[in-house]
Amino acid sequence: MAERVDGNAIRTQRTRTRVLAESLRLFNELGEAHVTTGMIAESLGMSPGNLYYHFRNKDQIVGELFARFEERIDVPPPVGAEGPEAIEDLWLYLHLMFEGIHEYRFLYRNLDDLVGRSRKLRERFNRIARRKRDAIVALCEGLAGAGLMHASPDEIRALAQNVLVVSTYWLNYRALRASRPNASPGGDEDRALGEGAYQVMALVAPYLAPEARRHLDRLGRSYIE
Amino acid sequence: MAERVDGNAIRTQRTRTRVLAESLRLFNELGEAHVTTGMIAESLGMSPGNLYYHFRNKDQIVGELFARFEERIDVPPPVGAEGPEAIEDLWLYLHLMFEGIHEYRFLYRNLDDLVGRSRKLRERFNRIARRKRDAIVALCEGLAGAGLMHASPDEIRALAQNVLVVSTYWLNYRALRASRPNASPGGDEDRALGEGAYQVMALVAPYLAPEARRHLDRLGRSYIE
Repeated sequence: MAERVDGNAIRTQRTRTRVLAESLRLFNELGEAHVTTGMIAESLGMSPGNLYYHFRNKDQIVGELFARFEERIDVPPPVGAEGPEAIEDLWLYLHLMFEGIHEYRFLYRNLDDLVGRSRKLRERFNRIARRKRDAIVALCEGLAGAGLMHASPDEIRALAQNVLVVSTYWLNYRALRASRPNASPGGDEDRALGEGAYQVMALVAPYLAPEARRHLDRLGRSYIE
Repeated sequence: MAERVDGNAIRTQRTRTRVLAESLRLFNELGEAHVTTGMIAESLGMSPGNLYYHFRNKDQIVGELFARFEERIDVPPPVGAEGPEAIEDLWLYLHLMFEGIHEYRFLYRNLDDLVGRSRKLRERFNRIARRKRDAIVALCEGLAGAGLMHASPDEIRALAQNVLVVSTYWLNYRALRASRPNASPGGDEDRALGEGAYQVMALVAPYLAPEARRHLDRLGRSYIE
């Protein structure tokens, strides 16, 4: 006997997914502070009442997007390679981190405000930051152990911290330096991602042995070309 | 014949100075967004009307504090020493930069909001950032020319950019990672300054020749001891 498919549950799930995807798109494009639930409903050709049936308010939408971001970005660091390929593990980890930041860039553009509004978001953001730092330290210690990185434990700790600061605030710094506030056409955001990745690679590079450094250069070139 | 002293002008100047000093203290302690002109007047035992006579609104106070910050921080980089002492020029420049950030830390804690509200502040902030970057590049090129730093022009440019990102956002990053929002007792702010300076020195250190690196370590130790 085939299981009965609950058509309502599927429709509900599909609607929630559409609302979240459209909210993410609008938040990234206009900034979360400038988007209302009314705008999200209108953009989807949906009545405000129908949207409200699925999400009580904008904060709930932000909370769900944050949960997806967390799932996306909070991946364990790759481990394995011990030879020169270990540098690829670090590169891959940073690459995935940047992709996640890019995909959910509205969170980063408005971070102080978002975590100021919600203690829960603040705690979740801190947990992510702590795990990222630990992952970067572990990857660097692996490189140091393999003789591919020359850095003391203190230097690795300071380096991991700087990787987090630069990756967390690169988009804000860039927006601050832009001639017009909130100027963020699509192509420019892609360039911002590439530049941020380049700046973070520049933090790691001087600690690498020449061979590993050349390897990282080759991997990183895809970002700026 | 002695020049006549204008008592009113002196009193006005003195009052303005007192208002600015107290505003700076309150902004740094509570955050600019949480301070009203009423609170500033009350804290000085002054009537709101009297404060209003000197400053039309809070934005005018912020603008004047920004002008003082600009004067304080926008100093030409020291030039001169070509031997191992050239590292002291860089250290001194970064040290003065950090002191200025510390003294006007409310600007940095609320930067996106402040420059978002005023195009003029944004332009002035950008001018400061550009000059700082140029100064750091010039100091590093001096070190490279003296054989005390091993870095290509591209590396120096990326390094100067990272010095700006880390110094601009260190206080925000630290606040974000703190368990309670807006927790900023005085002693903690001093520690924040020291940690920020330490993180920035860690950006520069790996590019230095061993001798210059030891020299920078000695100079920097005063921050964390």
